[in-house]
Parts: sequence; C-alpha cells; structure tokens
Amino acid sequence: MPGDRPRVVIIGGGFGGLYAARALKRAPVDVTVIDRTNHHLFQPLLYQVATATLAPTDITAPIRWLLRKQRNTTVVLAEVQGIDVDTRAVTCDDGTTFPYDFLIVATGSRHSYFGNAEWEKSAPGLKSIDDAIVIRHRFLLALERAEKATDPDERRRLLTFVIVGGGPTGAELAGMLPQITRHGLPDEFRTADTRQARVILLEGGPRVLPTFKESLSAKAHAELEELGVEVRTNAIVTQIERGAVWLGEECIESETIFWAAGNESSTLGSFLGAPLDRAGRVKVQPDLSVPGHPEVFVVGDLAEMYTDGARVPGVATAAIQSGAHAARNITRVIERRLPAPFRYRNKGDLATIGRHRAIAQLPGLDMWGTPAWVFWLFLHIMYLAGFRNRVSVLVQWAIAYFTYQRGARLITGRNR
Amino acid sequence: MPGDRPRVVIIGGGFGGLYAARALKRAPVDVTVIDRTNHHLFQPLLYQVATATLAPTDITAPIRWLLRKQRNTTVVLAEVQGIDVDTRAVTCDDGTTFPYDFLIVATGSRHSYFGNAEWEKSAPGLKSIDDAIVIRHRFLLALERAEKATDPDERRRLLTFVIVGGGPTGAELAGMLPQITRHGLPDEFRTADTRQARVILLEGGPRVLPTFKESLSAKAHAELEELGVEVRTNAIVTQIERGAVWLGEECIESETIFWAAGNESSTLGSFLGAPLDRAGRVKVQPDLSVPGHPEVFVVGDLAEMYTDGARVPGVATAAIQSGAHAARNITRVIERRLPAPFRYRNKGDLATIGRHRAIAQLPGLDMWGTPAWVFWLFLHIMYLAGFRNRVSVLVQWAIAYFTYQRGARLITGRNR
Repeated sequence: MPGDRPRVVIIGGGFGGLYAARALKRAPVDVTVIDRTNHHLFQPLLYQVATATLAPTDITAPIRWLLRKQRNTTVVLAEVQGIDVDTRAVTCDDGTTFPYDFLIVATGSRHSYFGNAEWEKSAPGLKSIDDAIVIRHRFLLALERAEKATDPDERRRLLTFVIVGGGPTGAELAGMLPQITRHGLPDEFRTADTRQARVILLEGGPRVLPTFKESLSAKAHAELEELGVEVRTNAIVTQIERGAVWLGEECIESETIFWAAGNESSTLGSFLGAPLDRAGRVKVQPDLSVPGHPEVFVVGDLAEMYTDGARVPGVATAAIQSGAHAARNITRVIERRLPAPFRYRNKGDLATIGRHRAIAQLPGLDMWGTPAWVFWLFLHIMYLAGFRNRVSVLVQWAIAYFTYQRGARLITGRNR
Repeated sequence: MPGDRPRVVIIGGGFGGLYAARALKRAPVDVTVIDRTNHHLFQPLLYQVATATLAPTDITAPIRWLLRKQRNTTVVLAEVQGIDVDTRAVTCDDGTTFPYDFLIVATGSRHSYFGNAEWEKSAPGLKSIDDAIVIRHRFLLALERAEKATDPDERRRLLTFVIVGGGPTGAELAGMLPQITRHGLPDEFRTADTRQARVILLEGGPRVLPTFKESLSAKAHAELEELGVEVRTNAIVTQIERGAVWLGEECIESETIFWAAGNESSTLGSFLGAPLDRAGRVKVQPDLSVPGHPEVFVVGDLAEMYTDGARVPGVATAAIQSGAHAARNITRVIERRLPAPFRYRNKGDLATIGRHRAIAQLPGLDMWGTPAWVFWLFLHIMYLAGFRNRVSVLVQWAIAYFTYQRGARLITGRNR
C-alpha cells in the first residue's frame, strides 16, 4: 500500500463493530464503519423497550456520534449486499462500493424459527429496535382489545401472553410482564382485569437459562414463579398460528406470542468462502481471520470462536472482546508482526428476571435475588453508551421502580 | 333517562377532549373517551420530536393513564367512522357502537395543502407523533445522504431545508434546524459540512407569525435571521415536487421540504348536519352546541367559535377552555339549568424561535429574546402532562442546552 494508509472496512455498528473501530482510534489506518441503521443499539436492554419501560432513543446512540472524535473514521449508512474477497471490495444497496485492505465482519445474528419462518407473523422476535416497537405494540394492543372484548373467551385469549424460549431474552421479557399487568395497570382499565393476565414461559429444554449452572437456573425458575410467571420446561412447541401455540396435542390459546428461542447468523457469512456451522456462523481461525484470507476477520455472534476448546458464547462481552482483538491483529499485521490468537475472558454471566430478581455467575461467586439485581443495575448503567442515555435511563428506572408506571406506552403507526 | 346515569361520549383525546373529560370528573354521568391513538399528545412540543430533541414518549401519555383516577370514565382505542345525530350513536371502525345522551366532538384538524394533496408526499406536515417521526427521518436521512453524496449539486440540495409556512410551527421548526446543523453535528461528518446547510422559511403573507402584533412579528423575523434562517415573506409556493419548491418562476432545489402552512378540520364535522366554514370547521352556537342539537357540542380546532365578535384562534388554550366549557354546559343541562355561552379568555400568545429566542404577547405585556424564552420554558414544563415526562424533558433539555447534542437521533423502520 505505497503512499496511502491501509483501508479498514468494518461491517456492522453493534458491539463487535463499534469496539473494533474504537480499538483502531490511534492506528495508522483509514476506517469505514458501514451499518444499515444509523444507531448503535444497547441490546441487553432491548426487552425494556419491548415492555414500554424505556424509550427507543434511551438505548440507542448514533454510531457517528459515538465515533465523532475519531478523525480516521468515517461512518456510512448503507446495507451491505455483497463481499468480494478476491477483489477485496464491499458493495452496498445504494450502489456504492468500498475497497478494503482489511475487513472486519460484525453483522451478528437474527432470531431463527428453525425452518418455520411462517411463525414469525404470529410470534415476533426481538433483535432490533423495530422488533421491540412491534412487540410493544402487540403487548399494548392486546390490553386495549381486552378492554373492548365482550366475549369472556376472547378476553382470556387477549390476556394470555406466551413467550417461547427460556434464555435470557425470554426470561427477561416474561419477568417484566406480570409486574406491569399486576401493579402498573389495573386502575386504568374498567372492563378487563389486567391482574388476571397469564404470562407463560415455554422452554424446550429441561431448565430455563441453561447456560448458567443448575443451582442458579433453579433459583431463576423459582424467582420467575414468585413474580407470577407460569414456567414450563421440556415444552416443545410444534406449531404456532394466530391465537394459538401448540405443544403436540396441547393447545394454549393466546393472542400475543413472543419468540425468544433461537438465533441464526447474518447471511453475509456466506460471501466469505469459509466453512459455516449449522446456525450460519463462520468457522474462524484462532486469530479470528477467515481461512485463506488473513485480511478478513469475523467477530461477535457471526463467528464460531473457541477458547480452550470451549465455544465462546454469543454474548455482548464476547462481541466486544473479539471486535477489539481483530482490530489489534490488524495493527499487528501492519507492523509486520504475527496476529495473536483470541482468548475469551469470561467475566461472568448475568441475567435479570424482574424487580429485585436476577442471577449472576461470576468467577468464584454466585449471586441471586436483590444483590444480583443491584449488581446488574450498576453494571448496565456503567456500560450504557453515551452520557445522555445514562441520565435518562436512570430517571426512568427510578420512576418505574417507585411508581410501577411504564412511561413509554406509546402506540405509533396505523397498525392497530 | 330513568334509572341510569346520562352517557357522555367524547371523541378525541387531545386538549379539548381531555379537559372535557376532566371537567366531568365529579359529574353524575358515565363518560366514554374514544381516540384512534392510545395517547394524549402535547402538541406544542411536537416540533422538538421532529428535530430529534425529545423522544416521542416524552410528549405523549396514555389517555387511560391520564384519566385512570376518574372512575366514571372509560377510555376506548378506536377510530370513529360515523355519528348518527338522530339515533344518538357513534360507530367505530371495529364495528362497535356507542349510544350517547350527550356528545362532545373534539377531533381537531389536520394540515391542509389547499387542494394540492399530492404535495404531501414531498412536503410532509406536522400534526401527529407519526408525522414527527417522518420529519425526523427525512431530516436525519438528508444529512446521511449528504455525507455519501459525491456530486456537489446533490450535496447542496441535500443540505437545503425548506419550511413552508411562517406560523408558530414553521418558525419553531426553522429556528431549531440551524442550531443543530451548525453546532451539534459538524464534528460527526467527514465529507458533508453541515455548517453549510441552508434553512429557508417561506411565508406567503407579508410577515411571519402574523397572529402577533407587527412589532413582535418583526422581532421574531430578526431573531430567526440571527439564528441563520433565510426568511422570505410574500413567498407564494406554486408547486412542490420531489427535490424542488417553486415560487412562480423561481425554483429552490431542496431534498427536504416541510409543510406548516395550513389546517383543515377533521371530517367528522360533516356528520353533524351543521353548517361548516371553508376550512371544514363546525359553526357552533354561543354555548358550543350544534344548531338543532343541544346535546351535541363541538370544541377546539374543529369548532368555529367567537368571543366579542372575534374568532377564537386554533390554539391549545382555546381547546382546553372550550372542552371544559362544553363539559360544564352538560352538567348545567342535567341540573335543568340553561347552558352558558362560551367566552375565550385570551391568556396571551407565545411562540418560541430557538435558543434564547421567543416572543410573547400577553395582556399588557410584550416580551422577546431571553425573557420570553425563559417564560416559554417555564410554562411548557408546568403544563406538560404527567410527572415522568416533565422530569425526562427537563433532563433532555438541559443536556441539549449545554452540549448542543440532540439525543433522539434515531431512524427506525426500513424507509431509508
């Protein structure tokens, strides 16, 4: 690259892409970050937008604002449609092309319906801000329709909420709903008794939050039930249609079904000519590069990564660490050093369940109940990207905590 | 009405409808409030959502939350499709029917294109939260596209913002934009120089903010120019198309055009069998009832009302006062007293223009500049419906004031 600085293109402005860009702040490269949205999303709090506790703008920040002080970095709003690893260029939906010397792909995953794509209509999933707004609308509209319903069966269906999938997203969504229907809303409705609302969490495996150790998983199960969630394990969903979830012969009637059961990777992985696993993740080398293309790195949820023989989990900290690591490897290559293998440092696992309830599995320390919840609160406020959001989230959490009110109960658009 | 309490149906949960419902809190009636959205909108701050300063949830509150303590009141989410004044019933899009003994129609107005409905595509107006989100998207996307543009002419078109209409909404929108493009954004963009952005305010009449006295109107004109707005009066728009506004032979090239030039009333007025004015407003009796139907009242923007021979303006305070007055007249009729004529008490007119700039015309007092702006701030924080919103708005205004940052810069949906 005589004369010019190496061009690094980063696809995706989530945790992986953002932290990759930040790690290149002082590197002698020109960085271009491409994302199909204008914002970085603080995904761990997405379920709070879906349940009308936080506003969409509270957990998002413009990517170009987050990277504004990094003069070697340009942010582009565009959707990548193809990657040509031979000519080293990325092409976008608006016809633009970005040649690169190094590429970092950090486009993450979408929820997966395991071959039942038609279930999405009846059971939306939760990955983006648009998803969260859809779920918020469905939840609020079910209550509005229950208030108008004259048939008791219809009202029962409208006041039954089913969440499929007992991982962190499912448990967080499920734990939040009874707090709202039991405490926040009853005095606003005249016909529907929102205290009668049922929240059912269906987990296909033998326990909820299966990535945690069994004792914490059991604590979370008990905490969910204390909050009023009906938790059902070994519950294999065989069919979802409008108004009903089927578990083999058994039918649960519900007008509001949310999907939190599985992920599949972004389709961009298929352009890299690398082997993919069953979920579409790219099998990367130990240094996070693609076999045969030492200049192309894949990080975050889109990568199948290993540390000490164990698969690195698809969590925010893994995306952050791998994004920064790929960036550092690029710097090493430019300095004519060898790229280093990636090692995931497990800082612990954390899931919140609801008011005063969470579980945390840290190195040498297990927590549950109020201590875990306070720890969760502290950590999330610390990590929230952008000063404004942090203050606004704090204010809204404080009000929601003391009043049980959900401030962001807005239905927009004409999709009633 | 033997045995039963009179049924009052209120259509619309804006200022008119909300304050009508509140005035019936202790009345011996059953109240039903019907709105096609789930939220009351604090319309005077809508331009702040359109300019990404506040979040949509900051200036909205669920109608049923606002009326939750009023046990005689039921809130229904539905769109009214017809009113039968003979059988005394309101019918909704979901097939439900609400019979009434008294009716208050408070459905307000939409923006009007004076017979050029096709202009709406290129020049959206600002009345609802959905409108504000559309305008926010257009504004933010123009900047994103300017950053990507390679043709200098295209970039110039993308950095030219035209606002048609010099009333309060137009002046507020126009005054806000240069603050953002000149101070908030420049360090985020690498190719586009947002400081070069032009903001043009077109007013068809001889002066901006024509409802104010001439001296204040002139002050507002000067303040807008100080902020960097190109103000053009006697500028009659003859054609709007994608990328261009025409003033007779003159063409202003712009990719982002906003409409703030006129209103027309909700179409529900036509069901009342009453005479309408040119803008579709219902010509009501002095007591706000419809001629021949003493049980039907029209309030707010949908009513043509007079006080001392002067037309009552279409402002929030007039909607609040007339809504409450119609409610009190219903109580009087139930108590077998005569309904009282409505008198609008003009508490003054207020328009904000931008940072430290506003004009206020109060009885016996004119204000402009910083004092008027502080007064405006104080009043709007006082009036904001709902505690949560007030705190959140304060926090966000404080941050926007000190940092020039706009926190709500979120583009949602796929409408890039």
